[in-house]
Formats: sequence, structure tokens, C-alpha cells
Amino acid sequence: MTDCVFCAIVAGTAPATVVHEDADVLAFLDIRPIARGHTLVIPKRHATELDELDPELGAAVFRAGHRLARAARRGGLAADGANLVLNDGKAAFQTVGHVHLHVIPRRSGDRARFVAGLLLRRPHDAESTAAAIRAGLAALDAR
Amino acid sequence: MTDCVFCAIVAGTAPATVVHEDADVLAFLDIRPIARGHTLVIPKRHATELDELDPELGAAVFRAGHRLARAARRGGLAADGANLVLNDGKAAFQTVGHVHLHVIPRRSGDRARFVAGLLLRRPHDAESTAAAIRAGLAALDAR
Repeated sequence: MTDCVFCAIVAGTAPATVVHEDADVLAFLDIRPIARGHTLVIPKRHATELDELDPELGAAVFRAGHRLARAARRGGLAADGANLVLNDGKAAFQTVGHVHLHVIPRRSGDRARFVAGLLLRRPHDAESTAAAIRAGLAALDAR
Repeated sequence: MTDCVFCAIVAGTAPATVVHEDADVLAFLDIRPIARGHTLVIPKRHATELDELDPELGAAVFRAGHRLARAARRGGLAADGANLVLNDGKAAFQTVGHVHLHVIPRRSGDRARFVAGLLLRRPHDAESTAAAIRAGLAALDAR
């Protein structure tokens, strides 16, 4: 889709720190993270909203998000949980017109930091963060 | 699982206004809705957190949530979008220890009402709300 920044990331013409890729989906760091490790999972094929997304592709997006949430509990992030959020439609605060699932790692007692993150959305070191996530995925694979 | 209120709903020993059921998942109205039509989708088999949830069962939960989000745009709710939220772990504000996906229908311009709903979480008429959702699901099926 022309002018879609997420399609440009899929095409490799816009930069992103990718943590997972398969035939159906791409997962990369949010450039304005609410918390360290905040990742977006998108279907590679463009769909603006859930209403035009193939159900199986939606399931693939969620499978990847589920796996990233589990990976965040391992590897370098050592999260205690995660928020998975999909805002569908402008009415629901969707800001990029390409379906995306947020995976936001959480730590016990991080409430104040989380609220600050919502306001600040300041980037962390992308490479070390991505390495921590990839280590978590590898730990899952090794089981 | 003993003492799990969502397992009790699955077993039929606790009440709920069910809007969808299949072999793997159950969807019912949140008793403290943030917005009218706020629905929870759960796997019937107990899993406290995503870390112990079978990936295919997770995909089934999401497929049902995806369908409910699409249904909310039809039928009586006439939503313009939805927030899909899965809080995984107490650190991520998970309050019931059985995996559940929130599907929260949204309307354009409902931001103030949404914030009020977050604070108040006051029930709407369950039967008319469930009928509106079921009409949306039927509209999807009829396509």
C-alpha cells in the first residue's frame, strides 16, 4: 500500500529494528516505546483495520504476540507480564492505518514508570533491547 | 480449576451473559464494562497466564475477539472500532487469574465517555447489549 509506513518497513524501504519475521508477520520495536521492549506485530499484507484482515492472518499476528509476551519473561527483559493491545479504528486510538498489535513488557511495581512511559514514549537503546528479546525467543525455542 | 470464577462460568455454575461459545472459547459480557458491549473472551481450558496457554488456544481466543470486534461494527452496537486488550500477569494489571481478552467497542468521539467508563465501569442492560452483539455476529455470518 502506497504511503503506508508499515508496508515500507515490510518492503525494507523504511528502517526498523526487527525482532521476529516469518512468512505472515513482522515484529519490530516501537520507535516511541511505552516501556522497554515495546514491540509491534503486523501482518505483512496490508490491512487498514481488523474488518479487512483475514482471520487466519489475525491469528498469526496474535500467535507471534503471544510468543513475544512469553519471550519477554525470559532473555534480558525478565518481564513479569505484558500488555497486548490492538487498537482497531481511529475511534479506538489507532494512529497508523495498518493493523498492529502492541506487546508491552511489564515489571512488577512498574506502574509509575508505565504511566510516565505513556506520556514520554522515549526510545531505549534499540540494539540491546532487541538482543534481549531475541534471547528470550531463543530461550523459548530451546525448551 | 477450583475457585476460578471464569472456570465456574464455563462449567455453568456461575452466571454470565454469553454472546459466543464454541469448542475452545467462551465470550461473555464484562460485568463491569468500560463501554457498552465490553466482552471478555476466554479459553475454556484453564490457563492462568499466557505462559501456560497453548498457542493454538491463544489463536482461537484471538480469532473470536477479532470476530467480535467486527461484529460490533454491525448489529445494534454500530461501533466505529474496538480496543482488544489482554493483560498478561498481575504486573500488567491482570485481575482474574484466567487468561482473558477484552473486546471494548468504541464510537467516534467517545473519548470522554470512555474515560468516564474506565472510572465508573457501570453495567448496561445486559440482555439488550448481548442481543446487539449477537445481531452483529449474525450479520457477519450472513455475508
